[in-house]
Amino acid sequence: MDSIDMKKALQEYVDAFNAGDLDRLMSLFADEARVEDPVGTPPKIGIKEVEAFYAESLSGGSKLELLVSPRGSYGNAATITFAVYAQLEDHSIRIDVTDVMTFDSDGKIISMQAYWGPDDMQKL
Amino acid sequence: MDSIDMKKALQEYVDAFNAGDLDRLMSLFADEARVEDPVGTPPKIGIKEVEAFYAESLSGGSKLELLVSPRGSYGNAATITFAVYAQLEDHSIRIDVTDVMTFDSDGKIISMQAYWGPDDMQKL
Repeated sequence: MDSIDMKKALQEYVDAFNAGDLDRLMSLFADEARVEDPVGTPPKIGIKEVEAFYAESLSGGSKLELLVSPRGSYGNAATITFAVYAQLEDHSIRIDVTDVMTFDSDGKIISMQAYWGPDDMQKL
Repeated sequence: MDSIDMKKALQEYVDAFNAGDLDRLMSLFADEARVEDPVGTPPKIGIKEVEAFYAESLSGGSKLELLVSPRGSYGNAATITFAVYAQLEDHSIRIDVTDVMTFDSDGKIISMQAYWGPDDMQKL
């Protein structure tokens, strides 16, 4: 999978997320996918845990806004840098995030790591 | 090392790089640092190889422009997303990059991975 194809998959990730389409989003992931969001917390392991995680995100109406172009690599990983807009209890929040995604030989996402810390979340 | 301190170290990385100050830049790295730039190519391992790599970058007058705020995490890693402006042979180039940096218990950079692919470099 070359760098351009990885970026296309990441754009599709953003578009599927923003469409609120869980099936479309999950079709991008491998069965053995591992999602660590945020980095430094226990990962979701396997497609069932990953799907439960995204189902909750989508049900809250969260949206992603890409802030710069995706970055590829000479390996099997690429990144997106974005803001997430979400509801937390009774207020709106923005979280500033960079995701690093790794792809398997079938072009599916095998690993997602979301970099954001406590100071990357702000009330709006 | 908390998320805010990691971001301060990354801002200092950018400032030291743009000042062309190799000693100041290298003081941020652990002796056993590993630098993979770009991801998917053989890493520079140990402070001597890392210093040689940065000495070459700085001698060419490359500059970094942060494009969004650094991202922290709940672990020991943080990211910066930027453009590098450099000279390649007789023309100017821009490379769009995201660096993931991991810190050791002394607050030094133990690992740097630079995500950019062939399609992230453009002639200006």
